Amino acid sequence: MVFASADVSKQELDSGDLFRPRFNEAGLITAIAVDAEDNTILMVAYMNAEALQLSLQTGIAHYWSRSRNALWKKGETSGNVQIIAEIRTDCDQDVVMMRVRTQDSGANCHTGRKSCFYRSLEVADDGKVVLSFDEKDQPRFDPSKVYK
Amino acid sequence: MVFASADVSKQELDSGDLFRPRFNEAGLITAIAVDAEDNTILMVAYMNAEALQLSLQTGIAHYWSRSRNALWKKGETSGNVQIIAEIRTDCDQDVVMMRVRTQDSGANCHTGRKSCFYRSLEVADDGKVVLSFDEKDQPRFDPSKVYK
Repeated sequence: MVFASADVSKQELDSGDLFRPRFNEAGLITAIAVDAEDNTILMVAYMNAEALQLSLQTGIAHYWSRSRNALWKKGETSGNVQIIAEIRTDCDQDVVMMRVRTQDSGANCHTGRKSCFYRSLEVADDGKVVLSFDEKDQPRFDPSKVYK
Repeated sequence: MVFASADVSKQELDSGDLFRPRFNEAGLITAIAVDAEDNTILMVAYMNAEALQLSLQTGIAHYWSRSRNALWKKGETSGNVQIIAEIRTDCDQDVVMMRVRTQDSGANCHTGRKSCFYRSLEVADDGKVVLSFDEKDQPRFDPSKVYK
């Protein structure tokens, strides 16, 4: 699998029918996973070219872990593998979005929750921005037991 | 409005109840807009601290345009202003996600479409990755007439 060059016009990027991933200066592209059934946004991470190729070839989401500086097959430790139903890219091809079906408990966040987006912002009277937890998204596993 | 410091432990970031936006080295945070009704992913862009504060204060999505190097009130030219229903952040607080209701035609992409994610990836027999257009997401305005 070879990716086509992204060194083309803006019009070719947004109107063409070839995938031309625009990796950033670190060689990464933003990758978003959403629930294939209800579109719930699950997580945002990054892929390098190898992770993107593996995701396309295997149908299982692979990322690049910036903290561990390593290829990351999501769910390898927790069992929560993400099966890809569809991959899309955006108009300027610097983001990929995957519709996924998460295996096992269905958790996608390292905290054990379905989604990493479990807190909403509110501006308090004193000007501080506070977070309130989505009580519907409870942890599905105990991270201290899964990640040792 | 003052944002709390992000120079805290990982646990404070993912378990705390204060918003501590983690701007990158360019002073930007990734911002995702999704449809408040059906969760369709609409666009991915960036915010600096000012755009984030304005979004929280006004309830209207503001971004930072990296190509124009300027504050960007989404829809100022096209009329497709994004009214924010909710803002969330993720576990490590380096992304914000907004549920929005887009005004006027409901387009969010500069191509006139509802979503920037109008093309899906397919691996062809020759190993090239081709894009197929989502025919359900037709342009709602003519970009050449709106952006002069």
